[in-house]
Amino acid sequence: MDRKSNVSMAVIRRLPKYQRYLRELMENDVDRISSKELSEKIGFTASQIRQDLNNFGDFGQQGYGYNVKDLYKEIVKILGLGEEYNIVIIGAGNIGQAIANYNFDKLGFLLKGIFDVNPKLIGLKIKDVEIKDIDDLEETLQNNRIDIGVICVPSTNAQSVCDILVANGVKGIWNFAPVDLHVTDGVAVENVHLSESLLTLTYMLKDMKHQ
Amino acid sequence: MDRKSNVSMAVIRRLPKYQRYLRELMENDVDRISSKELSEKIGFTASQIRQDLNNFGDFGQQGYGYNVKDLYKEIVKILGLGEEYNIVIIGAGNIGQAIANYNFDKLGFLLKGIFDVNPKLIGLKIKDVEIKDIDDLEETLQNNRIDIGVICVPSTNAQSVCDILVANGVKGIWNFAPVDLHVTDGVAVENVHLSESLLTLTYMLKDMKHQ
Repeated sequence: MDRKSNVSMAVIRRLPKYQRYLRELMENDVDRISSKELSEKIGFTASQIRQDLNNFGDFGQQGYGYNVKDLYKEIVKILGLGEEYNIVIIGAGNIGQAIANYNFDKLGFLLKGIFDVNPKLIGLKIKDVEIKDIDDLEETLQNNRIDIGVICVPSTNAQSVCDILVANGVKGIWNFAPVDLHVTDGVAVENVHLSESLLTLTYMLKDMKHQ
Repeated sequence: MDRKSNVSMAVIRRLPKYQRYLRELMENDVDRISSKELSEKIGFTASQIRQDLNNFGDFGQQGYGYNVKDLYKEIVKILGLGEEYNIVIIGAGNIGQAIANYNFDKLGFLLKGIFDVNPKLIGLKIKDVEIKDIDDLEETLQNNRIDIGVICVPSTNAQSVCDILVANGVKGIWNFAPVDLHVTDGVAVENVHLSESLLTLTYMLKDMKHQ
């Protein structure tokens, strides 16, 4: 498979959606689909779909469309799925616990540790993983290959937690703290900023009222 | 204040970030800031900042920069903050509970109800709000002005919950289910698709490895 670098983030953010729709098609025993049909389902134009996929190779055939299973497999590969990722969660509050309880293990994400500062939480178990003192984080990072650190601590502590993760070789940061983290080159940060998402919604609500 | 319609979603998604940085500047008693200084903090170019803000009016003065407090107030107004929003949460699982426990009330979001199908959860309280049977959802929607429905149910039930919300006048949907909802015109949907966010991160991890 031909992979071009410097694919835009907008394209990359659409890939998981392709993966989701193709999985659904597979579950419904659909073998092939035209870009027009896929377009109607997924809500992108057929030309957008062709352009997106062309970034990664030559999929689909004129007059035949896409082979659902083959395209699904390619997208899974492009997304780096089908591998195992070891993750740790820092911050066992509401969001941290929700993430720990989420069924990400089905996708290959293995929870290797949860850390908090709160003595009331330390020692409790979530899905057989014991919540440890945050002072034990470095040791865990040094003794295990951890791919992704999930930051669910208050914003004032997020950067220092991030620094510990990066200093110990973690290359992926999934950040739920409402703050922009600074990392060195070669480290990827993906933010989930819930307040910002909610404020986007209030903007849209207000905008509709004025139309 | 001049408000132009059809502002792009990319601009809208940057607004909450301006709000967050300006609030921090205010908390640090900064009265004014140049677009260059703001640019260094926020990570957008100065020209991007000027373009973004020009969508909403004429802020800032040549040689003076932006008055932090005034700009903050304008952005808050643009975002539709400073008003109260009544919200209900449907689905009191991990994510639903995390959202219920989040301090969104400080921003003016008032939790008016939480609903679930699980008899073990019904009757429990989160922040003084009792989890009710989902069969009571319609009555709550009919007896209260609910602005935003937060959907935290499994994807198979998300559309039917959404339909009930929309049929009863809810104009804002904050959707955490991994599915694309169909709504009528005049209803805004904002998605938080956690799996898709995580898959974006694995893509970036994979991409870095190959560079």
